[in-house]
Amino acid sequence: MNRDLKLRRYRGKNEYSYSFGGFPTIELLKNRPESVVKILIHSDMDSPQQIEIITNLCYKNNIPIEYNDKDINRIKDKGNIYIIGVFIKYQSNLSPNNHILLDNPSDMGNVGTIIRTALGFDIRDIGIIRPGVDFFNPRVVRASMGAIFSVNIKYYDNFKEYERDFPSHKYYPFILEAENELSKAEHSKDSKYTLIFGNEATGLGEEYINYGKPLYIKHSENIDSLNLSLAVGIALYHFSI
Amino acid sequence: MNRDLKLRRYRGKNEYSYSFGGFPTIELLKNRPESVVKILIHSDMDSPQQIEIITNLCYKNNIPIEYNDKDINRIKDKGNIYIIGVFIKYQSNLSPNNHILLDNPSDMGNVGTIIRTALGFDIRDIGIIRPGVDFFNPRVVRASMGAIFSVNIKYYDNFKEYERDFPSHKYYPFILEAENELSKAEHSKDSKYTLIFGNEATGLGEEYINYGKPLYIKHSENIDSLNLSLAVGIALYHFSI
Repeated sequence: MNRDLKLRRYRGKNEYSYSFGGFPTIELLKNRPESVVKILIHSDMDSPQQIEIITNLCYKNNIPIEYNDKDINRIKDKGNIYIIGVFIKYQSNLSPNNHILLDNPSDMGNVGTIIRTALGFDIRDIGIIRPGVDFFNPRVVRASMGAIFSVNIKYYDNFKEYERDFPSHKYYPFILEAENELSKAEHSKDSKYTLIFGNEATGLGEEYINYGKPLYIKHSENIDSLNLSLAVGIALYHFSI
Repeated sequence: MNRDLKLRRYRGKNEYSYSFGGFPTIELLKNRPESVVKILIHSDMDSPQQIEIITNLCYKNNIPIEYNDKDINRIKDKGNIYIIGVFIKYQSNLSPNNHILLDNPSDMGNVGTIIRTALGFDIRDIGIIRPGVDFFNPRVVRASMGAIFSVNIKYYDNFKEYERDFPSHKYYPFILEAENELSKAEHSKDSKYTLIFGNEATGLGEEYINYGKPLYIKHSENIDSLNLSLAVGIALYHFSI
């Protein structure tokens, strides 16, 4: 691994990305140590506890630590950042367990929140159908609070490609025009499920009405739709009980 | 009403606040016309449809419209804003229906999302126990997508004060140490309920274990807690089915 990267502010085309802050960086070191290039610490960092945890993890995994205020100030995006994890972007395949599939998610905060909520309901596999946000963008990493390093994420070009990989999952597309209400849906434990959600503004395309068992979440007419991460959280809750 | 206010960027101590953008401004005009001082339109505004709706609502309610790029550029907070509603901050009392009660919420985006989600589940009454965010901050208004103008919001100094106002509501504090799981909770329609949630980082104080029927939302040990707006959304969903 080349550890002498010339570090710049994050751009999607970079081969590496960053975790900003102590907590997500510890998650990175615990879950993806093989992808870490190095850890940067700012001289103003004053949490000896976090430094100790990070130092131990770096020592165990042979990862260099650099005190480097200049690099941190150049690449941080906002506020005071005292710890940055630099990591090479990686690919993961989805496991055969339950999945969330997001078709064209466009809001980085939403995707980060969804990743963390998924992990909270023990879902560790998230598919994304292109186009969709760059899930290694530091804003996604931050919104996920480091949960992103505990899940598998894979991009697909379209639903058919996903279907080829997981033909025996039971699909539940969430779509306003669905006939069945989430609260009445029952999933047999004999098969794995895939909960499918569309873009924040436009939802899933109408072709999804033909896939699996489409569901809707009942809400009042006072709002157009639930926020995407709320819809995912409610669906996850329902399928977990 | 003094309509010749010297408009400045929003600060909590101002007696007036703003809705930024066409959609929240239309919600403001529809639901709280009596509080609107005036509507500002930027000369670059190019949605004749929104202008027509706004013009009609202003005409009906005798509210002045100003084309005023200078004021808009001074008071907007970010991005391109072509429509601003200027309104006097108002007080509302809570109705005797079902409530959400937030103790010391600190994130404006969260509170805005909670307001919109509450409206989505037909809850129009939200109590806030101080300290808590300024719910008239334009960031809350934006995150609520204007839903804030359809709900009643009232501040309380402590839970006892709220309890004096609504002694016969059934209280459900959400607290990690609760004995009962949300998914098993059943609420009799004979009484109204109050779902109570604590601060994003610290949760509800331990005294809440003694109020009403405390509940927790089961999640995996991979995360410390669910995001506040997610927890509220999941609870609202459960109580709506």
